[in-house]
Amino acid sequence: MKRLIHAEIAAERLSEEQAAQPEGRFPLIAILDNIRSMYNVGSIFRTSDGARIEAIYTVGYTPHPPRKEIEKTALDATRTVPFKHFKTMAEAIADCRSKGMKIAALELTDKSRSIFDIGKGDFPMALVIGNEITGVSDEALALSDEAYSIPMFGAKHSLNVAVAYGVAVFECIRARSK
Amino acid sequence: MKRLIHAEIAAERLSEEQAAQPEGRFPLIAILDNIRSMYNVGSIFRTSDGARIEAIYTVGYTPHPPRKEIEKTALDATRTVPFKHFKTMAEAIADCRSKGMKIAALELTDKSRSIFDIGKGDFPMALVIGNEITGVSDEALALSDEAYSIPMFGAKHSLNVAVAYGVAVFECIRARSK
Repeated sequence: MKRLIHAEIAAERLSEEQAAQPEGRFPLIAILDNIRSMYNVGSIFRTSDGARIEAIYTVGYTPHPPRKEIEKTALDATRTVPFKHFKTMAEAIADCRSKGMKIAALELTDKSRSIFDIGKGDFPMALVIGNEITGVSDEALALSDEAYSIPMFGAKHSLNVAVAYGVAVFECIRARSK
Repeated sequence: MKRLIHAEIAAERLSEEQAAQPEGRFPLIAILDNIRSMYNVGSIFRTSDGARIEAIYTVGYTPHPPRKEIEKTALDATRTVPFKHFKTMAEAIADCRSKGMKIAALELTDKSRSIFDIGKGDFPMALVIGNEITGVSDEALALSDEAYSIPMFGAKHSLNVAVAYGVAVFECIRARSK
């Protein structure tokens, strides 16, 4: 096997200009509910470029571009993923509802379904990603239609938020493609 | 929906002592091929506790426990995921072969299959995770049976290594459970 070189990979990807276009995006908006770390936000941008989701909504005190630390971790995916900042979760969620999206929290709740049960009918979806310590806020949970969780088999309670987001969004892509 | 509280989540998890046992682990060993960042290694430990994989093999200059920075990012998952350090990829891969494992690189190659094509028959598996910049080494690729890649739809070439690992390992769990 031969590792692809930079030019071969680039030939399989969109240009930055193409990637930034509104057409053909995956019908998911990630709503970042008071995430603390710029590195997590940057990583979520990078993953969101790979998944080519519709947009990232940053909410409350979630750091948002332009911020050098975000752009560095995002490898400039802030140029290819549309984003918008909202002061409150209610405003961000109302915006997604007006687009006909189902609102789903990535959180352990008494009613969470496994991400492996997501199906084609669950899109378009707004996926709420919670704070590193406190998770998805009560306000956001009260406004959500559904919650999903990632099955966990060890002793720790959760994954890093940027990893959990990656696992969930690529499972969404797989689920919708079947 | 009600977010689970700490005690409710703990009741669904293994204790650290239970989680560290050899029985009932997911039949996958993650081989870290000269990863640079302690934070990525720590995050991979945390994810590996959640997936309860067999072990992590750190190779070459990959930082390995005990290291304060790894343990902090891992949230002490270094206590629940068995690990072993190898000087060379050849030794790490030979160890996995002796356990009857298929050797698979998570890398973009001319022969890579999508992670969404992984099936039950692909386990037990040793999954080689490459360096942040240079990817899986030529040496490891030459010794691998197979390569998998994560479908990418935007402009960036790849995901962060700890995110990519999380996406791949949870796709392995889903694939083997169907």
